[in-house]
Amino acid sequence: MYSFKNDYSEGAHPRILQALLATNLEQGEGYGNDPYTLEAIALLKERLHCQAADIHLLSGGTQTNLTALAAFLRPHEAAIAAHTGHILVHETGAIEATGHKIIAVDSADGKLRAADIAKVVALHSDEHMVKPRLVYISNPTEIGTIYTKSELAELSRYCRAKQLFLYLDGARLGSALCADGNDLTLPDLAQLTDSFYIGGTKGGALLGEALVIVNNELKRDFRFHLKQRGALLAKGRLLGIQFRELFRDELYFDLARHANRMAQLLQDALSSAGHRFLVDSPSNQLFPILPDALIEKLEKNYAFYRWEKIDERHSAIRLVTSWATKEEEVLGFIAALKEA
Amino acid sequence: MYSFKNDYSEGAHPRILQALLATNLEQGEGYGNDPYTLEAIALLKERLHCQAADIHLLSGGTQTNLTALAAFLRPHEAAIAAHTGHILVHETGAIEATGHKIIAVDSADGKLRAADIAKVVALHSDEHMVKPRLVYISNPTEIGTIYTKSELAELSRYCRAKQLFLYLDGARLGSALCADGNDLTLPDLAQLTDSFYIGGTKGGALLGEALVIVNNELKRDFRFHLKQRGALLAKGRLLGIQFRELFRDELYFDLARHANRMAQLLQDALSSAGHRFLVDSPSNQLFPILPDALIEKLEKNYAFYRWEKIDERHSAIRLVTSWATKEEEVLGFIAALKEA
Amino acid sequence: MYSFKNDYSEGAHPRILQALLATNLEQGEGYGNDPYTLEAIALLKERLHCQAADIHLLSGGTQTNLTALAAFLRPHEAAIAAHTGHILVHETGAIEATGHKIIAVDSADGKLRAADIAKVVALHSDEHMVKPRLVYISNPTEIGTIYTKSELAELSRYCRAKQLFLYLDGARLGSALCADGNDLTLPDLAQLTDSFYIGGTKGGALLGEALVIVNNELKRDFRFHLKQRGALLAKGRLLGIQFRELFRDELYFDLARHANRMAQLLQDALSSAGHRFLVDSPSNQLFPILPDALIEKLEKNYAFYRWEKIDERHSAIRLVTSWATKEEEVLGFIAALKEA
Amino acid sequence: MYSFKNDYSEGAHPRILQALLATNLEQGEGYGNDPYTLEAIALLKERLHCQAADIHLLSGGTQTNLTALAAFLRPHEAAIAAHTGHILVHETGAIEATGHKIIAVDSADGKLRAADIAKVVALHSDEHMVKPRLVYISNPTEIGTIYTKSELAELSRYCRAKQLFLYLDGARLGSALCADGNDLTLPDLAQLTDSFYIGGTKGGALLGEALVIVNNELKRDFRFHLKQRGALLAKGRLLGIQFRELFRDELYFDLARHANRMAQLLQDALSSAGHRFLVDSPSNQLFPILPDALIEKLEKNYAFYRWEKIDERHSAIRLVTSWATKEEEVLGFIAALKEA
Repeated sequence: MYSFKNDYSEGAHPRILQALLATNLEQGEGYGNDPYTLEAIALLKERLHCQAADIHLLSGGTQTNLTALAAFLRPHEAAIAAHTGHILVHETGAIEATGHKIIAVDSADGKLRAADIAKVVALHSDEHMVKPRLVYISNPTEIGTIYTKSELAELSRYCRAKQLFLYLDGARLGSALCADGNDLTLPDLAQLTDSFYIGGTKGGALLGEALVIVNNELKRDFRFHLKQRGALLAKGRLLGIQFRELFRDELYFDLARHANRMAQLLQDALSSAGHRFLVDSPSNQLFPILPDALIEKLEKNYAFYRWEKIDERHSAIRLVTSWATKEEEVLGFIAALKEA
Repeated sequence: MYSFKNDYSEGAHPRILQALLATNLEQGEGYGNDPYTLEAIALLKERLHCQAADIHLLSGGTQTNLTALAAFLRPHEAAIAAHTGHILVHETGAIEATGHKIIAVDSADGKLRAADIAKVVALHSDEHMVKPRLVYISNPTEIGTIYTKSELAELSRYCRAKQLFLYLDGARLGSALCADGNDLTLPDLAQLTDSFYIGGTKGGALLGEALVIVNNELKRDFRFHLKQRGALLAKGRLLGIQFRELFRDELYFDLARHANRMAQLLQDALSSAGHRFLVDSPSNQLFPILPDALIEKLEKNYAFYRWEKIDERHSAIRLVTSWATKEEEVLGFIAALKEA
Repeated sequence: MYSFKNDYSEGAHPRILQALLATNLEQGEGYGNDPYTLEAIALLKERLHCQAADIHLLSGGTQTNLTALAAFLRPHEAAIAAHTGHILVHETGAIEATGHKIIAVDSADGKLRAADIAKVVALHSDEHMVKPRLVYISNPTEIGTIYTKSELAELSRYCRAKQLFLYLDGARLGSALCADGNDLTLPDLAQLTDSFYIGGTKGGALLGEALVIVNNELKRDFRFHLKQRGALLAKGRLLGIQFRELFRDELYFDLARHANRMAQLLQDALSSAGHRFLVDSPSNQLFPILPDALIEKLEKNYAFYRWEKIDERHSAIRLVTSWATKEEEVLGFIAALKEA
Repeated sequence: MYSFKNDYSEGAHPRILQALLATNLEQGEGYGNDPYTLEAIALLKERLHCQAADIHLLSGGTQTNLTALAAFLRPHEAAIAAHTGHILVHETGAIEATGHKIIAVDSADGKLRAADIAKVVALHSDEHMVKPRLVYISNPTEIGTIYTKSELAELSRYCRAKQLFLYLDGARLGSALCADGNDLTLPDLAQLTDSFYIGGTKGGALLGEALVIVNNELKRDFRFHLKQRGALLAKGRLLGIQFRELFRDELYFDLARHANRMAQLLQDALSSAGHRFLVDSPSNQLFPILPDALIEKLEKNYAFYRWEKIDERHSAIRLVTSWATKEEEVLGFIAALKEA
């Protein structure tokens, strides 16, 4: 049984484990003040072309989102998210648990546009309603789509005009930035958003996300928030060593490209076989619509999620690839597909 | 420069890294449903002689404390802690951020006794005050002292009589359980407390704490709380593999014994040289009172915290040993002490 | 200018002020332990045919909702509400500020049905999502519609089967219970819900809502929650005297009947004149759709809210009547309508 | 039985009820936008010599404190209070429930001094601890003492130098400002604090506190916080009419002077009879130490709280006077004292 269920089924890229081994017995300061973390942050600032950014390394996506939003918002301020947004649906009310409402906007492709947000802003006109203050987007989105540079730029312009913070969840950011059709870069993100994070857990690390805070207004005292939310690891080096390894050369992007290429192989084969997709995704998550009978056959050797019932005889499934996905298994899946 | 500043200056015990390497490319379920985590939990239940316990693996102490207390308490319920308690002082208001007051009790040795708590309970008599509902203790305490079995049993009896949950923070639990004078065991803790955690970060792991919930009333839906507080790692195996390695034989205790033995060497040398201590500690943290001139000399080659000014010419310092402390460095320190 | 903007434009029914005057200089216990509050609660229990109910008097609707829901729910538990629900839209995130998510369900008539809730329950299947635990409904709803006994009974059965608490917001409960087509009684509410409140502010009082807790599981320590949320008035008698006055005879219902009768006069006139309504409402809020030109004329002498633009030349307005609405002003409005 | 238990045993001063009656059936805007509330605010600004102040009317002290502090502080920021502070002890963790720690400072007379706060500030040096950001004081304090102008000025200077907000709880402010030895005025408070509130509930009103925000940094969006915490009354006029009545002439101060004079009569008689006091109080709360036998005799005709056991045969009691305290009852108490 080979799993395409998600992009966190394996451990870390071997180079990361080697880096942990190589530095293991050196003594270093705790709580992210060790030289490796400082080096990782320096490397990231260079990549972002943004020396002024504040960068913090956290353990996971939910932790990053809740720590950031709780630090950025006052009690009456709310976030806006697509109805598919991870914070809205799949984080067990983590943002609300810090006291903030999330306003949902329906979105067919998982992306937000200025016009959608404008409606929310128009509706929230007085003190009887929360004050929309932050726009949460994901790139790639939870259903695999990606933002183009012009889309993000338009959103950014709108948010700045309306004094809304723009926050981007980059749990799978590598996949987005390496996808076919992408024209965004890390420096673009640093220019167009107020804050975003670069996902490590799904990008080759054991765990770890790099939160980037660009807007000066949001930087103050952030380490207090890290500590308060349980996000300040005593052995912060564990995160620093990993991000240093991912960004001291092209490893982070190489791994994303591999994941995307594996997805592309699957997509091509599925398309060739005449299957449709729930949504067009250039990133490492695919949502093909398959006959239930075919799904059952594939399930004998491959693990994946059934995503949604489409009609009486078809369902959409989710296939996820990662840095660790083996090409031979992808080819095996394709062969099984053809055979069936 | 060798550091006695804390017990999280190095990475993990080499066996732990080897275990991560050996299992790295195996696919496993996410979020702690992988076989290694399940095995680690099974091993721990055996150690505790308590198959009914619920065990969850989290990343760090603050995260564990805040997730547990927020899950255990209703909004008007409060925790009681010694004035030295980690949750009270050094977690940036993490518990209060989940909505709960912590009531401080002065304690010379960092320990709580039934009589101290009885005063708090007597004072909190009506709905104009919070309702004390949980007693938080640490073993060893934040200043290195440990609970005896009879002390913990008395506390436990009192708490049960008064419907107070007894929660034990075991960030350095190995050191306590292996200390001279200790007569407590893991099964004792499972019998006498409602919940406690076994610290991994300071006990040889890269990160990780094993939260044990014994009281049935506190078990329900706990994984929801893990997720909501950002404590459910996608690659939960990272924690499972480490705890399995620590507890599949005596490694966890061997490492604690080493830390304690290193501390004992330091303590003996300091005592022999006629120095007093702020508090008697049988565990891996020492608080010797030294002449400032001596401290300055030692600081040339050794890093440690100055803890408290005692008089015009003396200060207490903190020396911490760990599983990674090198005996040769301890001997070097002792030599420097004698020389000075 | 006469206002139909809302049902809280005036002070209190004169009998209430007289009761405050008559008792003003008597000394009484604070915090709702005075004889008038106790008498009010006794009167309400009789009305409910439910001696076992716990009843607490609070100041306003938002305060009541947030205090109740925060007391009833654990951190990971969420409420379900119609998309028009007051807590979801018009309480500035008060529930979220206590840490709880509200899950919205689209509803054309402002009411919830078991089938709607079943979908939410089916979707929220694991610990990555909040746990739906309470169903929030309003009667009348925020758009004036009311629940029938069979509708509420069905909802109640479903909620009990699924271990969901059923909570009813009765800000305008008098109007619902006295509306044409209503077959619910106060004892029905005590039997079918877990908790509900009887609105005083919009029912003739200066301020005040009577929260009824029927489910034993939800009663414990509720006064602690009152105090913690700032809802325990030092001079609690202010609320007790008012509810005693409203419920020592039929005053509460007489006032609601007057409000409904005034609304009925308006509705009949509007219907006769051929105007449609956004929704059929038998209670004291009407949403007629009128030509914009007519609205402008009416606005010269009458105040009301424009609710929603319908097309280029029509808008829906909201007309609200109350215990204080003067029949002569209603007739004047009707005359102005005919004239225009 | 006559009660000296507290200053909220009666309703409101008769002039206030008359004002409610006189305006009762006038229509007005809801939520504090009515003419009476606006007039009350204008009158208060004049009294404060501070047109720039923002003033909001709330229902009670706990509600005012929690709404203000939750609006003023970011999640990691804490308040500092004397160990006797109302928010620390007698508000059921209301501040903590909004997420903020309160740091206690021992104080013999219930007052805070710069030196006390400086110790707290020195101790809270990094992100592992909360960040002290607001100093909470009460005038009069919870044990009846008052601040002089020079004391408050010194505190104010210190707080401004250290970027700490200074917030004053004026639940019984009238009594403080009219006490023997007071040299503070309302304009002084507006100049020396960042925010404070003028208590109405204990000063002659049915309910109501006027929160004054002087510091511009703290004003933004405050009405959102009022609504979110359930503090925005639909019939806000109820508060406006009362404060207008209290401040359109000297009523508020006349009532406070009466309360203080009644306390002074009691104090003189108790002192003459040779009784000591727990603390010297020039305001409307007294804490005489009496033989238990005497206390028992007095309890036959007078209600008051036993405050604290002093020795085997003596206890301190609390006597509270108010605007409503009858001189004949005070004289009766004094006679009973002499007789016994």
